[in-house]
Amino acid sequence: MKLLLLPSIQLVISIAHAFQYEELAQYVNNHEEEYMEALRDWVAVESDSSDISKRPDLHRMMELAAEMLRTMGGTVNLVDIGAQELPNGETLAMPKVVTAQFGSDPQKQTVCVYGHLDIQPAKMEDGWATDPYNLTELNGNLYGRGASDNKAPVLAWIHAIKAYRALNMELPVNVKFVLEGMEEVGSNGLDGIILAQHDTFFADVDFIIISDCIWLSRRPALTYGTRGNCYFFAEVEGPKKDLHSGVYGGTIIEPMTDLIGILDTLISPSGKILVPGIREAVAPLSDEEWKKYQDIEFDIDGFKEMIGVSQLMYNNKVDLLAHRWRYPTLSIHGIEGAFSASGSKTVIPAKVTAKFSMRQVPNMDPAMVKKQVTDYLHSVFAKRKSPNKLKVTMLIGAKPWLADTQDPLYEAGKRAIKRVFDVEPDLIREGGTIPVARTFQDVTGKSIIMLPIGDFDAGMHSQNEKISRYNYIEGTKLFIVYLNEVAQIKKQV
Amino acid sequence: MKLLLLPSIQLVISIAHAFQYEELAQYVNNHEEEYMEALRDWVAVESDSSDISKRPDLHRMMELAAEMLRTMGGTVNLVDIGAQELPNGETLAMPKVVTAQFGSDPQKQTVCVYGHLDIQPAKMEDGWATDPYNLTELNGNLYGRGASDNKAPVLAWIHAIKAYRALNMELPVNVKFVLEGMEEVGSNGLDGIILAQHDTFFADVDFIIISDCIWLSRRPALTYGTRGNCYFFAEVEGPKKDLHSGVYGGTIIEPMTDLIGILDTLISPSGKILVPGIREAVAPLSDEEWKKYQDIEFDIDGFKEMIGVSQLMYNNKVDLLAHRWRYPTLSIHGIEGAFSASGSKTVIPAKVTAKFSMRQVPNMDPAMVKKQVTDYLHSVFAKRKSPNKLKVTMLIGAKPWLADTQDPLYEAGKRAIKRVFDVEPDLIREGGTIPVARTFQDVTGKSIIMLPIGDFDAGMHSQNEKISRYNYIEGTKLFIVYLNEVAQIKKQV
Repeated sequence: MKLLLLPSIQLVISIAHAFQYEELAQYVNNHEEEYMEALRDWVAVESDSSDISKRPDLHRMMELAAEMLRTMGGTVNLVDIGAQELPNGETLAMPKVVTAQFGSDPQKQTVCVYGHLDIQPAKMEDGWATDPYNLTELNGNLYGRGASDNKAPVLAWIHAIKAYRALNMELPVNVKFVLEGMEEVGSNGLDGIILAQHDTFFADVDFIIISDCIWLSRRPALTYGTRGNCYFFAEVEGPKKDLHSGVYGGTIIEPMTDLIGILDTLISPSGKILVPGIREAVAPLSDEEWKKYQDIEFDIDGFKEMIGVSQLMYNNKVDLLAHRWRYPTLSIHGIEGAFSASGSKTVIPAKVTAKFSMRQVPNMDPAMVKKQVTDYLHSVFAKRKSPNKLKVTMLIGAKPWLADTQDPLYEAGKRAIKRVFDVEPDLIREGGTIPVARTFQDVTGKSIIMLPIGDFDAGMHSQNEKISRYNYIEGTKLFIVYLNEVAQIKKQV
Repeated sequence: MKLLLLPSIQLVISIAHAFQYEELAQYVNNHEEEYMEALRDWVAVESDSSDISKRPDLHRMMELAAEMLRTMGGTVNLVDIGAQELPNGETLAMPKVVTAQFGSDPQKQTVCVYGHLDIQPAKMEDGWATDPYNLTELNGNLYGRGASDNKAPVLAWIHAIKAYRALNMELPVNVKFVLEGMEEVGSNGLDGIILAQHDTFFADVDFIIISDCIWLSRRPALTYGTRGNCYFFAEVEGPKKDLHSGVYGGTIIEPMTDLIGILDTLISPSGKILVPGIREAVAPLSDEEWKKYQDIEFDIDGFKEMIGVSQLMYNNKVDLLAHRWRYPTLSIHGIEGAFSASGSKTVIPAKVTAKFSMRQVPNMDPAMVKKQVTDYLHSVFAKRKSPNKLKVTMLIGAKPWLADTQDPLYEAGKRAIKRVFDVEPDLIREGGTIPVARTFQDVTGKSIIMLPIGDFDAGMHSQNEKISRYNYIEGTKLFIVYLNEVAQIKKQV
């Protein structure tokens, strides 16, 4: 209240609100090549978190980001999250988490941008057309591992802040960063930081922004939901060691036969989940939601071609998108303990473990799903009257995340996209799971938005990953505008 | 005819026929420690044919055997069988096949002993109680990789011949050896030698003896049959690349679902093969055969304990042995292309290939089985109306082998066992496949006997492989006597 009595401060606030988009956009255009160089530098770092031999590169990647943020005047910390245990029992230091802060004006909104700097593995021999660690521009696309996932989006946020600073414009909101280096292997240690710094770093955060996702088409999008995931192991154990199928075939009920038998009861030939209770738990598709899906821009034929199938499970857009985003699906990933190499081997595997997972949507509850799947598998197994032993465990039980698209954070997103791209965004969901969204929601209780700039055909986790120059540059402008739009949201006191 | 007129030669023959078992047996007893040393030397050679880094050891193993046979005065050849192609396209010289000959008296029977000197892999960390390459005696058992499979049996044959020679006794039959070094990986190149030397090395061979098998209990045995094997690949192919189960789950019929579905139609929960036509082709179990099985010494409880199961598929001896030896069985070995490592991965595998095999018995025909399995899988796949593609191929189609137990070769075996062990042997079959038996039979047209000396609990292909000192030493005596018994068989002219 006292602040309102001080005209000079009021003046500062009104200057901050005089948003000069044209100048900022022009600045971005003038610095395109600098942005390309920055992305080239980052893509050149093989920050593969799954490959322990690349750990020094990953540490260097975190240092590079910290240094860049420090040079810009941010308050930067490299937070130690300890070591991970390797399968051989040794330990390996995990990459530090970079936190940074720009501005601490209590009158302003504070946003926290989450991103990650580790990448998926990539090798030329996997089928890359260009060196995955040498950013290569072809037909307006910037090819390189980590380009869309998630290095360019993180850089775009950094460029956005630098643009304000370079033009001596005050940031319309306080901006914080949380950048991790273990996302691709399960965000080890991140939950701990969110919990530990709940009352410190996160105390004044109003909104959380995640740009670790992609558009659905060439139309810009806002993402308002992700599916959760329940990951199961079903282990069937028989004899005490692997047996020769010639010498022992015909003497025992083989664990593989049992495992195949129970797996076959999980899904119908048309892809329906057969576990009782699962389909009943799913929130019904409302007319309003149906209408929303109907309006989304989505090219079914292009999608078929991209994944290389002649026929999809559903041939109309609404069913296809709905089953990708808001219905549960069950995938059998494989079997551990059986013979999986090339060639032939005449083994009766003694213990086989199927890995399958079920994507979770509202209003499913992972605890209930665990019970439903476990009970069901045990009941179908019991009918087989097998002497083998079945053990079902749920390894991961990640809940789905769903935002309210009427939230001021999404309204701000729609306005920002309209300003930069002159279109209404598609409001989309993500079939995959981004557990950190749910963790932020549960621990901080703050609103979260997923604001993607990655291309629909970014090839995340695949060969020839890329971001288009257009998405990288216009995405930087989007973030600039978005910060200003968030500043318009009335601050909760 | 001319020989009969020469008294001196008649004398030699009669000396040869005056079989002095006691002296020979005593000689064996006196040389036990020498035999242990020989086995220790051979077990120390890591002649693992599946591990290309061990190829020099395998070459050395063949040289060692050749040298030993040469020192004994045999006519020895190391036959080049060329090179194998490795998965990376390079080639690697295969171990030469050792052939040897002792005696060439046209008046005598000529036996050819087949054996192999390569071994299965073995590492301490697989769960060996002792170093697998350092022969270790514990409680009368000689532990080491290759002990029973097949180094000690080959040595026992060599010791048998040396005993005759050391005592200046003429060999009652001519003895040839064919020793290969690629048995554990499919006997590459061996068929070629049998075909190529059909009119030379094999021309005067009357009988073939294989000791690459084991007893069924503590009672000595003669083996008169092996099952064949048809090995199948069933490949289901969907999208052009692996997909993320979150992003794409719900959009396509997954190849794994299809594959699990068709695999589940192969076998009933109780282990019956469901492919039409298979069970109908099996020769019926005669009363006489039933009676034979009834007489065999076999400890069901010990068998259960050995493989570590609480319940077998059949709880009476006849059914259990019959299903192990003379009924077809189907084992699903595993799936290539799916996720098979430890841990979790959320992949929709694009192309998955199941490996399964069906053991063959009289009167099944692998060519017919190929058609039956292929047609059946395609018919159950068609009912699923899947957009994915199924391809079924039969990799191996090995026929079963069955000998006539009334053959003089088996009668000689019964007499020899009676002499050494003072018991009647069990007449048994082998559930596994020894393709070389069928090849010898088809190419040479000669009678074949399998004369095992390996213990019933030898642990072939498993951890803690062994041969008992008793079986090794008494087995050597058995071979000594067997050569004499074969000499009694009337020579076909």
